[in-house]
Amino acid sequence: MNEKQNKKSALHEKEGIPQPESFSASSLEKISKSRKIQPSATELITGILAHDKVALSRGITLVESTNLTHLAKANEIISGCLPYANKSVRIGITGVPGVGKSTFIESFGKYLTSLGKKVAVLAIDPSSTISHGSILGDKTRMEELVKDENAYIRPSASGETLGGVARKTRETIILCEAAGFDTIIIETVGVGQSETAVHSMVDFFLLLKISGAGDELQGIKRGIMEMADAVVINKADGDNINKAKLTKTEFNRALHLFPAKKSGWIPTAATCSAITREGIDKVWETISNYFELVKANHYFEEKRKEQNQYWMMETINEQLKSNFYNHADIIKLLEANKKAVANNEISPFAAAMQLLEKYFKK
Amino acid sequence: MNEKQNKKSALHEKEGIPQPESFSASSLEKISKSRKIQPSATELITGILAHDKVALSRGITLVESTNLTHLAKANEIISGCLPYANKSVRIGITGVPGVGKSTFIESFGKYLTSLGKKVAVLAIDPSSTISHGSILGDKTRMEELVKDENAYIRPSASGETLGGVARKTRETIILCEAAGFDTIIIETVGVGQSETAVHSMVDFFLLLKISGAGDELQGIKRGIMEMADAVVINKADGDNINKAKLTKTEFNRALHLFPAKKSGWIPTAATCSAITREGIDKVWETISNYFELVKANHYFEEKRKEQNQYWMMETINEQLKSNFYNHADIIKLLEANKKAVANNEISPFAAAMQLLEKYFKK
Repeated sequence: MNEKQNKKSALHEKEGIPQPESFSASSLEKISKSRKIQPSATELITGILAHDKVALSRGITLVESTNLTHLAKANEIISGCLPYANKSVRIGITGVPGVGKSTFIESFGKYLTSLGKKVAVLAIDPSSTISHGSILGDKTRMEELVKDENAYIRPSASGETLGGVARKTRETIILCEAAGFDTIIIETVGVGQSETAVHSMVDFFLLLKISGAGDELQGIKRGIMEMADAVVINKADGDNINKAKLTKTEFNRALHLFPAKKSGWIPTAATCSAITREGIDKVWETISNYFELVKANHYFEEKRKEQNQYWMMETINEQLKSNFYNHADIIKLLEANKKAVANNEISPFAAAMQLLEKYFKK
Repeated sequence: MNEKQNKKSALHEKEGIPQPESFSASSLEKISKSRKIQPSATELITGILAHDKVALSRGITLVESTNLTHLAKANEIISGCLPYANKSVRIGITGVPGVGKSTFIESFGKYLTSLGKKVAVLAIDPSSTISHGSILGDKTRMEELVKDENAYIRPSASGETLGGVARKTRETIILCEAAGFDTIIIETVGVGQSETAVHSMVDFFLLLKISGAGDELQGIKRGIMEMADAVVINKADGDNINKAKLTKTEFNRALHLFPAKKSGWIPTAATCSAITREGIDKVWETISNYFELVKANHYFEEKRKEQNQYWMMETINEQLKSNFYNHADIIKLLEANKKAVANNEISPFAAAMQLLEKYFKK
């Protein structure tokens, strides 16, 4: 340390001329005081249960924090909220960029609040590390909903792995529900693996499409169509109406070829226009019918129980892998074995066994 | 021990009357001699590389063995065969019971051997533990193919988990390829998770369907249709021809709605009759076109490399999980936490963390 300081000495300033203070002593004191009075976990829980959006936002910030000192407090808040959560309906909405997801959520959300519902909009977007929050980041796209007292919009937790973002979103749902939101909408871009994560945390999964665009443009990830409980063809307005209806028919035909769902629900396609708001009410009617069915046949609770257990196991499996793949001894051998396996120099199983032996004998 | 023996004493036989020998001393000697001359790994490798079916069957039996003393020998055989493997095309065929898989494979296999190909037929069927080998078990269904010198039919490795069965099938492929088989067909029942396993070990994935049966009857697992490189409507014969053609059109329409595949290949639907053998040649033509495409655009090698690495990782991940979930301390707490999580008494993440702490501090 000393050596380093000595090396820097050529650049050191003469002492004796004090820098002017940029902050007055009194301001500094005020700031440090306000920092000390960060609300406690109990205060935040009380605030959230009293439906205070500021407390909710602070709680979510703690849940999203990667700072380890926040972890205990975040866990306390989640535990405090858990008994009041789980009383909402959770709807996943996916669709590639360009199908009008934000506009749809704006129209759909406003329609729901007009029915007296309290709507929270969250997003899962692991790509936002690169794009700096491509979805929901631009809140101005939902300018009416963002001003609505009965709506709460939270952009995607950024950074980290999909597993991390998904965990945070799942805990954020708990906080939103405890804060009185009865309809949770989770938005995702239908191009990555995030749909599987969203599918495992929502009750209803809606796939947004548009007509006209070639399939390539609509490059939704394989498997997503089979997850959908409804396909909605957006932008069914102006010259587009007939094309949208045709696309709807095509999708209804395709959906018909898929096997029956465990929920007993038969997915259908519909058209709507997020701009003229034509068909938005029908989308909600479909979703309501779904909830009527799955609450009657108890699939609703069954699925939620399964989802909870899935997330417990998923967290365990992720951690087991992370512990293994981040192990110093493993990293080097893994790269070597990956190459050997790709070139058929060793069988995948023999290569795996080598690595496992090293790990467990560490 | 002694006590137990004493209790049994009321039933003991008087000593002094020797039991008649059920085997003659000379027979026993012969048997034990023949047991001693089990071929060595080197002998089996030599046999396999000389295209000897008996050596191949013995090698596969070792690979399939759950006896730990056979493991080293099995691994030696796999290593010896590996440099001569990977020179075949691997085709996965799936379809629910009733679509005529066995008859299709019989016709298709005979057609391939008539073209001078050497065909090995394997099966993945983890359900066979219960059904005692429901697929390929009844070899009489392929009575022509089973007698064909250029064909080799091996029923599914039974018992164990899907992971175990899949590993064995993958290693069996290596042995079959080293034994000169240039076309490997892997059959699976399209109702479980085994399709994902098969998909990750074949180059081409064929979904067999029939017309007429309701979708429920054809209860193929969700996601399988999106994996398919071709959908073949079987039983297009007699009164069924028109219905089959209609179904083909429907599938072509549905396949069109799926996004483009990474391979650049556009999946299509076709009809055939395994009984009249009408259309079987066209199925092979389609598959040949696929291989021409993916070998030219290098997707073929790329996918095989990825598959090898996938299997290495998959084996590691399976073992990490198996080590955790079979840990005595974990089993009990896991059950308790699963219940607590299902009833929303604890968040899935808090429950997972409890378990992980216990495991890593063991």
